[in-house]
Amino acid sequence: MTDTVTERLRPLRLKRREGKRIRAGHLWVFSNEIDTDSTPLRLFEPGDLVSIRGADGRFIANGYVNPHSLIAARVLNRDQKRPPDRKLLFARVRQALALREKLYPEPFYRVVFGEADLLPGLVVDRYNDVLVVQLTTAGMERLKDDVLAVLHELLNPVAVLWKNDTGVRKLEGLENYVEPAWGEVPDIVEVREGRARFDVPLAGGQKTGWFYDQRANRELLRPYVNGARVLDVYSYVGGFGIQCRKHGAEAVTCVDSSERALEFVRSNAKKNRFKVETIRGNAHEVLRDLHREKTRFDTVILDPPAFVKKKRDLDAGRTAYAGIIRAGMQLLERDGFLLACSCSSHMPEAELIRLVQRAAKQTGRHAQLLAVGGQAPDHPVHPAIPETRYLKSLLCRVSGQR
Amino acid sequence: MTDTVTERLRPLRLKRREGKRIRAGHLWVFSNEIDTDSTPLRLFEPGDLVSIRGADGRFIANGYVNPHSLIAARVLNRDQKRPPDRKLLFARVRQALALREKLYPEPFYRVVFGEADLLPGLVVDRYNDVLVVQLTTAGMERLKDDVLAVLHELLNPVAVLWKNDTGVRKLEGLENYVEPAWGEVPDIVEVREGRARFDVPLAGGQKTGWFYDQRANRELLRPYVNGARVLDVYSYVGGFGIQCRKHGAEAVTCVDSSERALEFVRSNAKKNRFKVETIRGNAHEVLRDLHREKTRFDTVILDPPAFVKKKRDLDAGRTAYAGIIRAGMQLLERDGFLLACSCSSHMPEAELIRLVQRAAKQTGRHAQLLAVGGQAPDHPVHPAIPETRYLKSLLCRVSGQR
Repeated sequence: MTDTVTERLRPLRLKRREGKRIRAGHLWVFSNEIDTDSTPLRLFEPGDLVSIRGADGRFIANGYVNPHSLIAARVLNRDQKRPPDRKLLFARVRQALALREKLYPEPFYRVVFGEADLLPGLVVDRYNDVLVVQLTTAGMERLKDDVLAVLHELLNPVAVLWKNDTGVRKLEGLENYVEPAWGEVPDIVEVREGRARFDVPLAGGQKTGWFYDQRANRELLRPYVNGARVLDVYSYVGGFGIQCRKHGAEAVTCVDSSERALEFVRSNAKKNRFKVETIRGNAHEVLRDLHREKTRFDTVILDPPAFVKKKRDLDAGRTAYAGIIRAGMQLLERDGFLLACSCSSHMPEAELIRLVQRAAKQTGRHAQLLAVGGQAPDHPVHPAIPETRYLKSLLCRVSGQR
Repeated sequence: MTDTVTERLRPLRLKRREGKRIRAGHLWVFSNEIDTDSTPLRLFEPGDLVSIRGADGRFIANGYVNPHSLIAARVLNRDQKRPPDRKLLFARVRQALALREKLYPEPFYRVVFGEADLLPGLVVDRYNDVLVVQLTTAGMERLKDDVLAVLHELLNPVAVLWKNDTGVRKLEGLENYVEPAWGEVPDIVEVREGRARFDVPLAGGQKTGWFYDQRANRELLRPYVNGARVLDVYSYVGGFGIQCRKHGAEAVTCVDSSERALEFVRSNAKKNRFKVETIRGNAHEVLRDLHREKTRFDTVILDPPAFVKKKRDLDAGRTAYAGIIRAGMQLLERDGFLLACSCSSHMPEAELIRLVQRAAKQTGRHAQLLAVGGQAPDHPVHPAIPETRYLKSLLCRVSGQR
């Protein structure tokens, strides 16, 4: 009986000596690991469910396949008797939700974070009763009706947005689209984070609209910013800057290249009943100009977009990080605090620390690492998949000591 | 004039091609980097102040020397015109104190953390008006009168204890001693951490009496332990366990091999008006027995002593960590939280993550890393000296999903 159930999933057979990594908990099967003689990839459609087998034919896991992708298959579960279905999705999302409900008192968080929640290809962000969903693989795209049904059953949203415009979809051969999946999706929603309130653009915003992943790092700054003049570089809609103001900063300046983002900064400042300065421009140029004008800050926050998108961009990306970190450090008062972030999974934490030390040397300062932060716990890391740990933040005190 | 001042410090000359690391910000000169032909180490007494020079004779830094130690010299400052003196110590300690005063509302913290505060060889912990000081190098031992004078001027303590019994003193050729430096040092002091209170043994306790370095990790657990049954392994006087109870845990069990530590656990529990279970014994054995009895917990905390004291102990240490992590994970309910710590600077964080994944596989569970923590910010890291980053903690959710 067991076998008849599993027989419904066609086997995807691995080469000899492959499969160890997957058996150890990893979820990805690379195309060069597949025994294409016995199970040719061209016989599969993108998103087909498969039963991943060792070279000896023994069951390893169930998953979905994409013959056009370098990551040719991803694991969904490891129970031979239970091929992936809506019930599995339901159990996975419920389990993911239970963590977030424990974490945060209000319904503003990432509900599902792909691989780490054993739901590769699925990201769900929650803005109270509005959900924004990203499907990033052909396999998850095929399950979209099930995804929607499960989200309805568990979260009863008034609106759901497909925000399927990520770059990785192209690797999966998927078209991009942004469209309502359900209900009337508002252009703007309110995010509540601690005592602060933010208006956030959904379909028109960056990524899923808001960066929940930086929540813990915004909190890290709390003890340091009371009475401070804060510079928030790459501010987007003002998450760091406005939260610092709420934590007692005396003055906040937000820098971004997007005028629309800065409009949100100003309206978000007003929403929280204070004012925030905004400067529109290229971050490197703005920092250079501020330095020339001898403007100084007590705290500088650097939260740039991923400078290293692919492994081969590491050298160029490192140079970009080095430049922005040095420029940010130069703007600090004799004693100040620097938060330097990188959301590039290809940028190693140790490299970022080295850049901080080098910038300290170049500017004649002493840096102390007070905390090494990462993505907030609603973006868990899968311990077998280093790529799921992408966000790094270094909180430093930079002094004039030598 | 400048030169006459510096001339008072004898030069310590480096070999050709050495000095780059120190110029880049590192504070240690290894004995094999010294040009002993031109500046023989035997001509120095342990703790002598020196002017560290490149092979070309150019000034790099001032520091102190120890001809008997592998780390033959440590940098104190980089200002040629200002040889290290009490004024420098004063400025350094004041700068260190300013950070801690910003960080914590009450006077319970590590005031000085050696290299990261540019005070190599000096550790000062503050228990309100009582200070515990560790001098770990011959150079700092020589400055002890200045240290005491500076601490008096800045902190006006009622008592100061020399807790000079660390293993590293032997490498410096120093005798160990624990004795009052000033005033009447109480056997026990009270530590206030958030809403919790702890009685802590000073001269008779581990290290300086209390582990301020784990404060941020105790705080990390807060969202997860409400209503939980918590197991605190290697509890010492109950820092983690009692703080969890304060955060709403329903029941707490502390495990330690020291009956005296467990007496403190029980009296500390009473002090906070609740009860905590204690089990005395070897952690590995206690965990095995609990597993046999099918006792289960919602949260397990593993805060062992350093299993990897030297680099060459890495294999044995890794095995010890693997064993305790697997044993801890086995005691978790189907869904539970694990905090696995390592205070061995030689144990890489990536290795610890690998052990969590392996334990998850062995116990048929799925682990998610919710946070990777480190030492609290009153134990800053010197970005050029990886050894100053010693404490790692992995907060994981461990579920029954597969």
